[in-house]
Amino acid sequence: MIEIYGDGQSGNCWKVRQILDFTARPYRWQEVNVLARETRTPAFLALNPNGKVPIVRLDDGTVLTESGAILCHFAEGTPWLPERGLPRTRVLEWLFFEQYSHEPNVAVARYWIHYLNAKDEYADRLPARWEGGYKALDVMERRLGEHEWLTDAGPTVADVALYAYTHVAGEGGFTLEGYPGVRAWLGRFAGLQHYGGLK
Amino acid sequence: MIEIYGDGQSGNCWKVRQILDFTARPYRWQEVNVLARETRTPAFLALNPNGKVPIVRLDDGTVLTESGAILCHFAEGTPWLPERGLPRTRVLEWLFFEQYSHEPNVAVARYWIHYLNAKDEYADRLPARWEGGYKALDVMERRLGEHEWLTDAGPTVADVALYAYTHVAGEGGFTLEGYPGVRAWLGRFAGLQHYGGLK
Repeated sequence: MIEIYGDGQSGNCWKVRQILDFTARPYRWQEVNVLARETRTPAFLALNPNGKVPIVRLDDGTVLTESGAILCHFAEGTPWLPERGLPRTRVLEWLFFEQYSHEPNVAVARYWIHYLNAKDEYADRLPARWEGGYKALDVMERRLGEHEWLTDAGPTVADVALYAYTHVAGEGGFTLEGYPGVRAWLGRFAGLQHYGGLK
Repeated sequence: MIEIYGDGQSGNCWKVRQILDFTARPYRWQEVNVLARETRTPAFLALNPNGKVPIVRLDDGTVLTESGAILCHFAEGTPWLPERGLPRTRVLEWLFFEQYSHEPNVAVARYWIHYLNAKDEYADRLPARWEGGYKALDVMERRLGEHEWLTDAGPTVADVALYAYTHVAGEGGFTLEGYPGVRAWLGRFAGLQHYGGLK
């Protein structure tokens, strides 16, 4: 059976669980506590030298890393990832946007505030994350104010990836008040069959 | 003709040029000066609301963003990107690793030192970037100390993506002295047909 090594509070790890639920594949969840430095043990580093969750172990022992790559791996051949050409490229654009422009701001602010419970300690570094996070949300709103999903292909792994930290952005000190398109999209996503959120 | 909007000093923009050279597609280069804030003009933001280079404009006006997605777009159907399954996933793992764990450290240190010429101004923030950058280089060395390319599929867009800022890491204050596998790989890459480096 597919094994996910993940931290139950991590949006990156939730993405993997969610695409396996959407594509109706059974899996076993192996909890890895990031705060307890369980991603730094020799045993874990042997699985992923980059020391990050999520990772996935397949039946034959193959280990997959990087949530964006794992999403594509399991979505291949399903409606969650267009087969090729521009529709596929549009999905990849959002996946890279998420990892470069959204996650390092929205997820990191949440990590400091909600996960480490250290808002005061990071008080001088939070404003830059909020600014970057709102810029990323602006980009999403431009699209979602006028469209149902992030790409024209219907719900895809692009939506899974961006949903991960957007639906818990409040835990990072963000408000989605000025983002009606994003809020409506969050509602549509939560209505999908086999949906299960992070909270 | 394909148009690249890019900054000539940017490794992310170089990636696009290089995959088009490797796949023998003609293009026109449109210089966009990031320091002069040419990515913040209304005209540019209309092309990419995220305000980042590189972008590509195709003959029919379609605009592509995100270097990782652009690499895959042009590599599709060529030996630079395996068609599907685990070989493709391995390439995607490295592409996401580059954007999340390598570029924000190696490229940002280089940006501060080489591009802004502001090493002193960023003196207190550089050590964290160097630490993160060397961790990323360690992960690359683990692979390249024992293999010719980043994946078993021969040279792919994974190698293009990681080559971008690794071959100019010195400009970010890094030394590759302890990385013989990485150095040998840089040499192999520079020997590829249609290669053209950033410098």
